[in-house]
Amino acid sequence: MDRKEFRDLVSPERAREAIASLSLEGGIDRVPLEEARGRVLVARLDAELDVPGFDRASLDGYALRARDTFGADEADPARLAVVGEVHAGEEPDVELERGEAVEISTGAVMPDGTDAMVPVERTDTDGDDVLVRTSVAPGDNVMFAGADVAAGERALGPGTQITPREIGLLSALGVEEVPVRSRPRVGIVSTGDELVRPGEDLASERGEIYDVNSYTIAAGVEDAGGEAVLYPHAGDDREEMERVLRAAADECDLVLSSGSTSASAVDVIYRVIEERGELLLHGVRVKPGKPMLVGRLDESAYVGLPGYPVSAMMVFRTFVAPAIREAAGRSEPESATVTGRMARQERYDEGRLRLMPVGLVESGPSSTGANEPVESAGAEPLVYPVDKGSGATTSLAEADGVVAVDPETDYLDEGESVTVQLFSPDVRPPTLFGVGEDDPTLNRLLDRLEHPRYLSVGSRPALRRFRDGVPDVAAVAGPIDREIDAAELGGWEREWGLIVRPGNPDKVEELADLIDRDLRFVNRTTDSGLRTTLERSLAELADERGESRTDLTDAIDGFDLDLRAHESPARRVISGDADVGIGLAETADRLELEFVPLGDQPVRILANPDRTEKAGVRELSSVLEGEGLD
Amino acid sequence: MDRKEFRDLVSPERAREAIASLSLEGGIDRVPLEEARGRVLVARLDAELDVPGFDRASLDGYALRARDTFGADEADPARLAVVGEVHAGEEPDVELERGEAVEISTGAVMPDGTDAMVPVERTDTDGDDVLVRTSVAPGDNVMFAGADVAAGERALGPGTQITPREIGLLSALGVEEVPVRSRPRVGIVSTGDELVRPGEDLASERGEIYDVNSYTIAAGVEDAGGEAVLYPHAGDDREEMERVLRAAADECDLVLSSGSTSASAVDVIYRVIEERGELLLHGVRVKPGKPMLVGRLDESAYVGLPGYPVSAMMVFRTFVAPAIREAAGRSEPESATVTGRMARQERYDEGRLRLMPVGLVESGPSSTGANEPVESAGAEPLVYPVDKGSGATTSLAEADGVVAVDPETDYLDEGESVTVQLFSPDVRPPTLFGVGEDDPTLNRLLDRLEHPRYLSVGSRPALRRFRDGVPDVAAVAGPIDREIDAAELGGWEREWGLIVRPGNPDKVEELADLIDRDLRFVNRTTDSGLRTTLERSLAELADERGESRTDLTDAIDGFDLDLRAHESPARRVISGDADVGIGLAETADRLELEFVPLGDQPVRILANPDRTEKAGVRELSSVLEGEGLD
Repeated sequence: MDRKEFRDLVSPERAREAIASLSLEGGIDRVPLEEARGRVLVARLDAELDVPGFDRASLDGYALRARDTFGADEADPARLAVVGEVHAGEEPDVELERGEAVEISTGAVMPDGTDAMVPVERTDTDGDDVLVRTSVAPGDNVMFAGADVAAGERALGPGTQITPREIGLLSALGVEEVPVRSRPRVGIVSTGDELVRPGEDLASERGEIYDVNSYTIAAGVEDAGGEAVLYPHAGDDREEMERVLRAAADECDLVLSSGSTSASAVDVIYRVIEERGELLLHGVRVKPGKPMLVGRLDESAYVGLPGYPVSAMMVFRTFVAPAIREAAGRSEPESATVTGRMARQERYDEGRLRLMPVGLVESGPSSTGANEPVESAGAEPLVYPVDKGSGATTSLAEADGVVAVDPETDYLDEGESVTVQLFSPDVRPPTLFGVGEDDPTLNRLLDRLEHPRYLSVGSRPALRRFRDGVPDVAAVAGPIDREIDAAELGGWEREWGLIVRPGNPDKVEELADLIDRDLRFVNRTTDSGLRTTLERSLAELADERGESRTDLTDAIDGFDLDLRAHESPARRVISGDADVGIGLAETADRLELEFVPLGDQPVRILANPDRTEKAGVRELSSVLEGEGLD
Repeated sequence: MDRKEFRDLVSPERAREAIASLSLEGGIDRVPLEEARGRVLVARLDAELDVPGFDRASLDGYALRARDTFGADEADPARLAVVGEVHAGEEPDVELERGEAVEISTGAVMPDGTDAMVPVERTDTDGDDVLVRTSVAPGDNVMFAGADVAAGERALGPGTQITPREIGLLSALGVEEVPVRSRPRVGIVSTGDELVRPGEDLASERGEIYDVNSYTIAAGVEDAGGEAVLYPHAGDDREEMERVLRAAADECDLVLSSGSTSASAVDVIYRVIEERGELLLHGVRVKPGKPMLVGRLDESAYVGLPGYPVSAMMVFRTFVAPAIREAAGRSEPESATVTGRMARQERYDEGRLRLMPVGLVESGPSSTGANEPVESAGAEPLVYPVDKGSGATTSLAEADGVVAVDPETDYLDEGESVTVQLFSPDVRPPTLFGVGEDDPTLNRLLDRLEHPRYLSVGSRPALRRFRDGVPDVAAVAGPIDREIDAAELGGWEREWGLIVRPGNPDKVEELADLIDRDLRFVNRTTDSGLRTTLERSLAELADERGESRTDLTDAIDGFDLDLRAHESPARRVISGDADVGIGLAETADRLELEFVPLGDQPVRILANPDRTEKAGVRELSSVLEGEGLD
């Protein structure tokens, strides 16, 4: 295969500079006030008028000349002739003479000749006269024209991000259209014959997968204040790809592609950029993301991202999103980074910048109360690396953000403070972090919690992770070999057995049928609690028969065909690839299959003993209690 | 005036309960994946397929049987016959026998008969054979079907807020349409004859003002995750108002109106709600916002907000926004509240909940660095009450949020920690907080700073506020009477004088003309540095003439007609309401008027000596330096 070599790897700083050197800025949009929220003002806005535009009564009462109330009090009121009234939105039709007053509503124009007002509560009426039981000074209870905002005053500066508050100010000034920075247009080009758009049919036998990066990066672009444009999927056809790339460059300020795994795609991108633009760098000393491309394509900027979803998000978040925000004139939201403590030591000997995908978990008893200072230690979440290999999409479910680790860093210590760049400002640590068996009852319980994270890694890996101290709870099915330090929150029994086609055409009746008859079986992985229970049952059967366990398992066709998810064996039975699958009664029921029960298996919910007071753990506890499962 | 009395004031808790009891929840929307960002998943989403859907090569290299590499190493490679190749997106057309290998690309389907792969770097080719220089175990460099997400697995729970990360997961699962909670529809009805929509002409003489609340609250509704619907302005016509209110109730989940100042509007709202719905409460023990209404109108919820913009925003933020967020299924963003310290003591003796509008100012030398822990004291901003009276729109420019002060609280101490509910999660403390004279040069300098706040309160009030220690800098024009503890960052001279109509038709030449001739003058308020300088000049003239200062000022027609903004006198000259206005050469120039110079006046930029190292102050310093104004 003829691949480009990345000989001249540049530093991450150089890469940032190169991206910064590409101007992503668009022009100016004029948007109506109703659509200005979140946009960024492009020029200073001075007040064109006084607010209020007239001397305005601050209360309901009487407008008058202050000097006419001189010496008035409760006992000795001033008597003034009421010569009219003026309401908000009306032009006064009187001009006051000495000894006169006008009834006035809050917000109404002070008539000529008046210089103060008295609230209605300090007055009485007497025929056509008003008795004023207090004395006022000129200006009392009057808001003068321009007192709020004065014509010519600097109202809003360039670069102001428009929030509801600024919209209030703009309304007050009568501004109906606001000049704002155009959002940078970011074209997203997806290449690769194996990629299929969500919603279309997937031919897994041909190795097709859904296109994850286009939509993820598009959402990231919008988060950063850009406008994302998805281009139709180009496949690996060179001409088609070149056409799409150039169309995107023509219509956008920035074109992003995420690394196709095919060599031909990389070649086309190289060639097009070299012919029609300029390649500023290829290859950065960063892991992952080494083969990042930065260049110019016609009038547009171009950045090539890695192909694996989490890698693509990390490189986007670290290198590209800041440039889009800069062009959009938006500062990074405060909530886009959090400080946390490393849950365990992590070693490095990369010699290059490492982007480490991490998950967050709150370790404190609860989050900070309303008036507590932020520095209480419990508020800082634990940060743990998400290490499924960058190819895994699941890391997306577990990773909350990225920690950039310097090339000089040999290790991050347990408890060390690190800054996490969240994948989006809306990302928040889960209220509960659980790991364990995939179980239908548990899934329903989880639905009733607020914002939990649950990873169905299987009982065995769950126990391993639980012992490492990161998750709050583990859901374990079947026997537990080693002793474990945990608080048991609750549990239930689940019926396990063999799942067969409707009507049980093979007349499967017991475990021995798998060994003695010619049936195609599908197993679960050793991570699963179901597998552990199956192996126990086989060991008992072997004892009964006076045979070795291996004799029995060797006799089962498909014993080593082990699948990860609890429904997968049943699905193989449906597809006809197997006759019998291991599974739960509930799964058979749900998928309308027949079930051969083999026994009951306990599922236990274990909690980290240090976290039993954490709000999410207590929430789970009370859900279990409510279900009688405690 | 026949006004409803608020006899049965309820507690703020009761008001919250009443609003919570009104169901604002809409139904379910099905949105395309591209539009799902920020929405909230309405139901659990289980994986319908395995990800990946096939056993997948993790690298470029050769797929083979692990057992064929047994014992292979650099010195003694295993020789396998290459019987084909398979690329990403292709269906393998070979099935491997013993001793064979297949060339394979990253992401391609592992052919039948293979159970591991060797990366190309650990191999050599020799004719049609490959020499494998390492031994591998079954499963090495292969990602098995479902390893990432397995069919049947719980993927996303109900209530999940969809960020780019969730969009990645949904894409991987091939989901193209997502069931999300409908945004609550919130109708905003504006009443009051005096209100005019921005962009329309304003008749100030009739007391018209622009409608601030409709747009501000609409933006707040969108911020909280609702959909705002602005209804056409209803005026004070009863039938029209009833029609608009009922149309809004028919089409929306919640109707908001902000208190019209006219009694008739309140009456209509009362009557319509009592006839067509239910009034749950009228009047809450909260300041401001006492006359808040909560009820039901046909099938919709109804809340009446106070009329003054800052009051309306505070009541909306405290009582209504949480209900909209709840209905939208969105939690409050972390960044929507900050903790700060009171800049000075504030006393209360209200006996009811007080909503205090506050501004924020960073007092530390700079904001927290990337990896510094959050608890460093400098990070907590100072919080100061914004006390312009709730009628002022300008408070909108100064207020960043609201502090709710309990009825039991007698005072908040200086330095006391308080929680500020920001008016929007995007609100951030200004990088620089300045007060002082309105000055064209300064306005231009401010444009070059990032996110400053500058309040042109005039030189005198600026000095008072500066002495209180809240602002970072003060811009003072003219003489300073008292000594002041400040670092002077820079300054410039500005030419002041008299502004007259083009061509100077009255042949105004000097200050004495105002006294000796029949000219209509317009002054600035005593807050202004220009006024102070004018008074000094008059005092000198009085000395020369041997007259008293009062004799001179009494002789000037309009000496007491004092306006707040620096351009206002000039604008009165343009409108013909005056012959001469006080002002700056630059203002005359800008408005194309004639200028009679009277002298130069210094403008000085003073900095709080404790804040000279604050980033924003240094930024201003360097801008001054760059202009040679330091």
